[in-house]
Amino acid sequence: MSRILVTYRLSCSNEAEAADFARAIAREQTVEVPPGVGGDALQARVMGRVQEVERVRPGRGAGASGDPGADPRLAPALETGAQDAGCFHVRIGYPLEATGAELTQILNVLYGNISLMGGVRVVDLDLPPAVLHALPGPRFGVGGIRALTGAATRPMVCAAIKPLGLSSAELAGLAATFARAGVDFVKDDHGLAEQPAAPFAERVEVVADAVAEANAATGGRTQYLPNVTGALDTLEERLERVVAAGLAGVLISPGLTGMDAVRWIAAGPRELAVMAHPAFAQTAPGRSDGIAPEVLLGTLYRVAGADMVIYPNLGGRFGWTEEACRRISERLRQPLEQARQPRATTRHAPPSHRPRNHIRRALPTPAGGMKVADAADCFARYGPDTVLLIGGNLLMQKDLEGAARRLVEAAAVVGAEAGEAGP
Amino acid sequence: MSRILVTYRLSCSNEAEAADFARAIAREQTVEVPPGVGGDALQARVMGRVQEVERVRPGRGAGASGDPGADPRLAPALETGAQDAGCFHVRIGYPLEATGAELTQILNVLYGNISLMGGVRVVDLDLPPAVLHALPGPRFGVGGIRALTGAATRPMVCAAIKPLGLSSAELAGLAATFARAGVDFVKDDHGLAEQPAAPFAERVEVVADAVAEANAATGGRTQYLPNVTGALDTLEERLERVVAAGLAGVLISPGLTGMDAVRWIAAGPRELAVMAHPAFAQTAPGRSDGIAPEVLLGTLYRVAGADMVIYPNLGGRFGWTEEACRRISERLRQPLEQARQPRATTRHAPPSHRPRNHIRRALPTPAGGMKVADAADCFARYGPDTVLLIGGNLLMQKDLEGAARRLVEAAAVVGAEAGEAGP
Repeated sequence: MSRILVTYRLSCSNEAEAADFARAIAREQTVEVPPGVGGDALQARVMGRVQEVERVRPGRGAGASGDPGADPRLAPALETGAQDAGCFHVRIGYPLEATGAELTQILNVLYGNISLMGGVRVVDLDLPPAVLHALPGPRFGVGGIRALTGAATRPMVCAAIKPLGLSSAELAGLAATFARAGVDFVKDDHGLAEQPAAPFAERVEVVADAVAEANAATGGRTQYLPNVTGALDTLEERLERVVAAGLAGVLISPGLTGMDAVRWIAAGPRELAVMAHPAFAQTAPGRSDGIAPEVLLGTLYRVAGADMVIYPNLGGRFGWTEEACRRISERLRQPLEQARQPRATTRHAPPSHRPRNHIRRALPTPAGGMKVADAADCFARYGPDTVLLIGGNLLMQKDLEGAARRLVEAAAVVGAEAGEAGP
Repeated sequence: MSRILVTYRLSCSNEAEAADFARAIAREQTVEVPPGVGGDALQARVMGRVQEVERVRPGRGAGASGDPGADPRLAPALETGAQDAGCFHVRIGYPLEATGAELTQILNVLYGNISLMGGVRVVDLDLPPAVLHALPGPRFGVGGIRALTGAATRPMVCAAIKPLGLSSAELAGLAATFARAGVDFVKDDHGLAEQPAAPFAERVEVVADAVAEANAATGGRTQYLPNVTGALDTLEERLERVVAAGLAGVLISPGLTGMDAVRWIAAGPRELAVMAHPAFAQTAPGRSDGIAPEVLLGTLYRVAGADMVIYPNLGGRFGWTEEACRRISERLRQPLEQARQPRATTRHAPPSHRPRNHIRRALPTPAGGMKVADAADCFARYGPDTVLLIGGNLLMQKDLEGAARRLVEAAAVVGAEAGEAGP
């Protein structure tokens, strides 16, 4: 029977305690009643089942910062605690009868009530074919985004228009500069919402016109992504304005709108690409609570429908680890139909029967205090199927257009090495 | 100038470091660009301003568990860290020009990007009049909910229908039993979504009919609250079905739908009361990250529009502290126009000019492993303006109707003591 498999990391003093805690979670997240209520048969049918309880051995993949001496492919591909003592991984399988196919209820079973407890962290998630069929995944995916920008094999570059407080005309001026330089994407700052200085309806129209004009002049294909994060009952109207302005995608912060807003856009009637921003996502490497960044940003945002997922790159001002960034980028791009390699410690490794290519690959979009000078390093780290987002550091360059153009050229070099002529 | 005042708790080694971190947050959450970008005048206008940096002195209100030897009213009404060493409270004032009046952007400025950093926790929030005017707050409030249930002064009682996996008819049977016993509210389990066993449209109709029939037989006024948490593009349709079924309120989990869904319902055209469930709220006492429970559940859920807010009561299976529960219940019910008492340590205590009673009072709804036998204690703790929610423990009683009736009687005793004749 196909189940949603969730691996939690628990802080417990011994294996028996971890097993008890795991059973309590399996109950809490589904029936949420004491044994017997509703009948034993029903409980057996809909409750989560503990499939594995494993002590995370010290020294094996220890620490979210990675162990430079070990091959990470030999370690379990799961974030482990900074202190391994008393750290357990438990795997629980939830039946689809408990979730249905709605994303909100899948998230509820994954981490609903236990998000109010201490010492429980979601470190892995494996979604069965029925769930992958019910969720849209990226509408464009890597191939669709490349078709949109015309970047056949090279990495892509994204700039941001900000700070908030600028007028729509001023933001449009920045966008036009970036478009003339040939960046692939110009995104709204995620803080551009409905402020009086540049309200959504006005901003979308004015900035879209400026980018279109620059594109017409250069023959370029810069895509402007307005931020549609806002009042949920205005989302349809905002999407309509985006389409009316001739744009092909949007920016949204699923932590603020609810993740289902991404699915709504990706599954909806409008052909819009989605770039997801992690604001209010409440995730970071190394915490003992929450959802690990690679599960939230790498798996969930992708299956919900994000074509591009922004996350804080290592070396920026957020202190994210190399390991976390690597895992996010891997999960965004790995085939979701791939048969899972059974781990040596797995007692019950379920077979995988996913249809091929059901969920498209998404583009890692590292950001967060990246510097223009870091571009080559970033391309080397993440490879060509990447969108590099540089915000504030680009805006502080004296020759904005020149600096943006150098970024695009750095991407073209990678493309040329990968066999493409560049833009 | 009126600002949104946010107090963060930071882990820092000294005051200078805390002040630096505070300034970095004030920038990160607003302009998110280096100094100078966009112009100094603009940055001065829209950036957050650090108004206070205070070392949290050890032994003063130390620990979220409260200090039984101290009068909590003399301590700062803020959650402090379990370990006070290197713990600072910094207060930042954000201008409304940075937020506008949309709830999503207010949350983004409050905790958007910094939710991806370690060691930053939101421990207080003070919303200025302009924001309180823009948000609906509870549509019913304490008075409106009492008018709905007919409970003039007594505490109210809520039961839950579950577990998921039961059919709509079985859930309706439970609801009818609770209604015959005279409970004030019967709510869907927060895990009842769109599962095949009891899909939303069918469940709402069947359960509403059963409760209406029981009410007609007893002359009671039990209110059924279906769970509308689900796909966001079906929310309107679900609300329409709730109204069509003759119901007066709904249950929703803002952590799953996005908090703006609460505002959408509370500010919308339908006269529906809102009970908010904390699933996926990702908050708990004693963490070093996140939003403190009293700010999230006590202030934000209320101003967004929740009439009743569920939270894990102390003594249940979630391990929440007495102090956290007290603070949540206080914030849900305290007048929001009340002038803030300047704290002795406050350098800049802004005057308050809130209109009287703009935001209605909401009802604490303690739950989470509460036992039938705990009812009297709970009423004594929280007072009459409370909805006591007992889920699984009530369902495991052999004489379900009798146990539910005893709960209602316990509430009536409190009401009689408060000068009401009881139901």
